[in-house]
Amino acid sequence: MEGEGDRAAAQYKFGPYMIEAGGVFHATALSYAMVNLRPVLPGHVLVCPKREVKRFADLSSDETCDIWLTAKEVGAQLEQYHKASSLTFTIQDGPESGQTVPHVHIHILPRKKGDFENNDEIYNAIDAKEKEMKEKLDLDIERKDRSMEEMAHEATEYRGLFS
Amino acid sequence: MEGEGDRAAAQYKFGPYMIEAGGVFHATALSYAMVNLRPVLPGHVLVCPKREVKRFADLSSDETCDIWLTAKEVGAQLEQYHKASSLTFTIQDGPESGQTVPHVHIHILPRKKGDFENNDEIYNAIDAKEKEMKEKLDLDIERKDRSMEEMAHEATEYRGLFS
Repeated sequence: MEGEGDRAAAQYKFGPYMIEAGGVFHATALSYAMVNLRPVLPGHVLVCPKREVKRFADLSSDETCDIWLTAKEVGAQLEQYHKASSLTFTIQDGPESGQTVPHVHIHILPRKKGDFENNDEIYNAIDAKEKEMKEKLDLDIERKDRSMEEMAHEATEYRGLFS
Repeated sequence: MEGEGDRAAAQYKFGPYMIEAGGVFHATALSYAMVNLRPVLPGHVLVCPKREVKRFADLSSDETCDIWLTAKEVGAQLEQYHKASSLTFTIQDGPESGQTVPHVHIHILPRKKGDFENNDEIYNAIDAKEKEMKEKLDLDIERKDRSMEEMAHEATEYRGLFS
């Protein structure tokens, strides 16, 4: 994990966008985890490689291990934090699978009994929100739909889980 | 990868079920990849840890790396084989996320433009098929819905990709 100084200075690449460090709650040598501009459920976060890599197959072996060890830890912590009992992990790998930002990202969603009437709907929601996220990033509207303060607050809460 | 002799002898644990080696087209030290009893799309396969592990967080670091390095290679090979252009990777991790068989498994689906009218529908289909798979395994009907010959033929094709 990186220290306060690193975090204050850091920005993270997410495809063509720069992510403010305030929304990043955990980082390892090769990966970072951020709160979501458009969460489908409480605790819906994204884990990405630090290097800008479009397709999953383009990750090195070290990056592949690092991103999934990170996702495993993040999932376990957020499942407990949100008093959930299951997790959904998904990669939309390439445009024909619904990927909107061309930078590998793992969706992690804490799941609870009855959170969606039909389990299917969670994926519809992920797809819809992924499109909205891309549109919002493109518009560069400084996240006014979800305030930077709100996102930073959530990230601070989660950061405490990894200290 | 294991040799012919190993494969002929091997059966693979998938939760409470035993999987015939004929349907397994690739295996590493800690993981195996099998064709699917109920594929949603051509090339829809499952990658599992050899050890019976229910939740993703219960995998060791070595297993986590091995299963995802295996999934990455399997995905890349099947995307090319099926002339697809994207991939969907999903883990339903726990019953509240739609997991039916209590043994970690990564769904991998080669994706093509227009394969589903709405990208969302792929997940509805995965969920429906996952339930059907569980029912069929429970019924132990010797896969009469999809013949062992058909599955073994598909597995043989894929096996050639990893030799």
